[in-house]
Amino acid sequence: MTEQHAPLVPAEGPSRAVDVPGTDLDPWHGTYAARASGLSVSEVRALFAVASRPEVVSLAGGMPYVRAIPRELIATAVDRVLLTDAPAALQYGSGQGMPRLREHILEIMALEGIEASADDVVTTTGSQQAIDLVTKLFIDPGDVILAEGPSYVGALGVFSSYQARVVHVPMDEHGLVPEALEAEITRQRAAGSRMKFLYTIPTFHNPAGVTMSAERRPRILEICRREHLLVVEDNPYGLLSFDETPPQPLRTLDPDNVVYLGSFSKTFAPGFRVGWALAPLAIREKLVLATESAILSPSSFSQHIICEYMETVDWRGQIVRFREVYRERRDAMLAALATYLPNLTWTVPNGGFYVWVKLPSELHSKQMLPRAVRELVAYTPGTGFYADGQGGREIRLSFCYPTPDEIRVGIQRLAAVVNGELELVRAFSGTGSLAPGSGDRAVSAPPPDLR
Amino acid sequence: MTEQHAPLVPAEGPSRAVDVPGTDLDPWHGTYAARASGLSVSEVRALFAVASRPEVVSLAGGMPYVRAIPRELIATAVDRVLLTDAPAALQYGSGQGMPRLREHILEIMALEGIEASADDVVTTTGSQQAIDLVTKLFIDPGDVILAEGPSYVGALGVFSSYQARVVHVPMDEHGLVPEALEAEITRQRAAGSRMKFLYTIPTFHNPAGVTMSAERRPRILEICRREHLLVVEDNPYGLLSFDETPPQPLRTLDPDNVVYLGSFSKTFAPGFRVGWALAPLAIREKLVLATESAILSPSSFSQHIICEYMETVDWRGQIVRFREVYRERRDAMLAALATYLPNLTWTVPNGGFYVWVKLPSELHSKQMLPRAVRELVAYTPGTGFYADGQGGREIRLSFCYPTPDEIRVGIQRLAAVVNGELELVRAFSGTGSLAPGSGDRAVSAPPPDLR
Repeated sequence: MTEQHAPLVPAEGPSRAVDVPGTDLDPWHGTYAARASGLSVSEVRALFAVASRPEVVSLAGGMPYVRAIPRELIATAVDRVLLTDAPAALQYGSGQGMPRLREHILEIMALEGIEASADDVVTTTGSQQAIDLVTKLFIDPGDVILAEGPSYVGALGVFSSYQARVVHVPMDEHGLVPEALEAEITRQRAAGSRMKFLYTIPTFHNPAGVTMSAERRPRILEICRREHLLVVEDNPYGLLSFDETPPQPLRTLDPDNVVYLGSFSKTFAPGFRVGWALAPLAIREKLVLATESAILSPSSFSQHIICEYMETVDWRGQIVRFREVYRERRDAMLAALATYLPNLTWTVPNGGFYVWVKLPSELHSKQMLPRAVRELVAYTPGTGFYADGQGGREIRLSFCYPTPDEIRVGIQRLAAVVNGELELVRAFSGTGSLAPGSGDRAVSAPPPDLR
Repeated sequence: MTEQHAPLVPAEGPSRAVDVPGTDLDPWHGTYAARASGLSVSEVRALFAVASRPEVVSLAGGMPYVRAIPRELIATAVDRVLLTDAPAALQYGSGQGMPRLREHILEIMALEGIEASADDVVTTTGSQQAIDLVTKLFIDPGDVILAEGPSYVGALGVFSSYQARVVHVPMDEHGLVPEALEAEITRQRAAGSRMKFLYTIPTFHNPAGVTMSAERRPRILEICRREHLLVVEDNPYGLLSFDETPPQPLRTLDPDNVVYLGSFSKTFAPGFRVGWALAPLAIREKLVLATESAILSPSSFSQHIICEYMETVDWRGQIVRFREVYRERRDAMLAALATYLPNLTWTVPNGGFYVWVKLPSELHSKQMLPRAVRELVAYTPGTGFYADGQGGREIRLSFCYPTPDEIRVGIQRLAAVVNGELELVRAFSGTGSLAPGSGDRAVSAPPPDLR
């Protein structure tokens, strides 16, 4: 499988609950755990399979541009592992992760102002596994997780798989709205909900592209602390800033009430599947037990390579290079949106991978996707980023993977799709051809020429 | 961390439910999910930390002897990955795993007679994650899992973390006893239990060292099929036979009713954390969704290295080499047991990593461990391999990691411990000094000179 053809969906994880096909023919129907109904196929998986053809410009995936890493840097690290530490790299290791790697993780977090002990770091199989472990540890069926609306689709998939109820809290251009959080907590308390944590991506939000302001951060932490609500801070993009430095992570302000999640996937490479959780002592102890149960120990080989990479290579310089690559692409996307879709609105990210675009009210993000793929451009419909059916008027555009030229072509094609759909809707307004339902059919059965 | 100092416990996973220390000081006490009480520290973790000192002969861990793999074989594979496929190896991949690797996995399973489609293989983060995913998919709190008594400690830890109730079914030297299985199912049905699956390690059992006879295999499958009970066949050691070839896996006899779990950890190296599940269609579809939710995708880097290893290296020859290494160690252990502990009884494994030893009825496997560590030999008490408190009269000895000379020294030391304990018990019989309870204290507080 070449990189170009790598599926786009796995990097996003499953979407909201949708019936798994073939249930009627399943001899084990009726014997699965109740939580299995929360495991669901992505709404747009079939279409994304089509969209992975090389002629399609994909603005849909969250794949980092790993070609920006000189291959020699990896080769140097691997050679040193095999020369100096091969038996340990091939062996089982500690469930919590190598102490040496956990020390290096402290260096990364120090770049964002976090001071911590390596004892409180738990190495995981990507930060996705950290989300899974925290959820497994805290969520009984029906428990409430507060999350920004929209929120990361892969986290929503985990929450659903443990039968959590996700309640979205609105954001604006300064991130999560404290007053809305407070009001929602009051509403949930009144309803008798068992709220377990706030899941937030404060910096360079996926998918919204916004950053929680420095002013709001202590206010939100204060609300959560007062309500005895744990904060799970997911921060995979924090070091990928383009303009000014973002506010410091929530973890720096309230170490005792924040579980911080980090990842090597965006600042090094996702293929090693190494992320981490930094957690208060009592939670960290349980996370170690949970990960030992789930996988025994994270990959020693991956951990050794990352250690050597951080010890022998200018990894900070590589992060600067990533910033430059992504800044150029962000600029290309914003310029192309201004040129080709001047009547729409979108967020202006100061870092990360994503722009969040509002569609004209006549269009539906999911229903428009088949036409987009036919026009050789792919995006992610906003519906995947909500647990409650919102997102029909929004789409997420990723600028991380395609080149600036591809981005310009992609946005030009997207403009043709949006304008074409608008003409169609306005010409046939009132016919119901784009009413909810017809679009679902279109997604699961794209035109024959796309197959 | 050197290989010699690698902790012994993670390779075994957590043990049965024990209160996590510090609960009283935990500000999140009362907010964890109910299942969190099933996450537990190993009963003997503290002691094993002491036992990882180099002067201790450890017969406790399940670490393969990865030094038997020539380092050049790995280097060749890694070099080719970086030369030919670096961007894909560094990127996210398919949640189900690389198609190319899944084809190679078919070649491995074909060595044991399994015919299957690569479509039905799900690549996992070690086969431990496959156990976790299957359990997550099927187990509601209180559901019953049938398992051999004793059974793999790491599987028991997973089952406990999903609040399963494990019911052990006895084994003899021919493996699981069909009549006992039938009787237990009847008993559970009468009690109204929701039985979900039989978890079995039919070949070179961990920890029992026995193999289910060819005669019993179809009988056990027939019972499970009749009772609509799924069979989860865990087979990490099947290719590591020492004498005659073992009977074919259960999966060859009943593909529709068996989820088969395999691993590269024992035939290649555990440091890559790659295993797999081979499952009937409906279950496989759900396992893919479950693993995407848990980790997005398994490590592309690890998968690419294994592909190159299998394409460029005589991996079958390497398995033969592993067999020779482990056969020599098994022989050393059996000979040393006969020499130094002629009055005990033990199983005679025809493959795998373990010998299961019965202690004299006066001794307790867990209570004896601190003395053993003081005498510079470690083993795993039988209690870890039962969910119900059995195992006090049994210990597991591993011959996979120490050299034949170390094994002889270790067994000689173990004999001194057993004989010393016996003398002590017989001298003070009736004093209650070895009654249950006093031993627990001894384990959690080993003599000061061991700290």
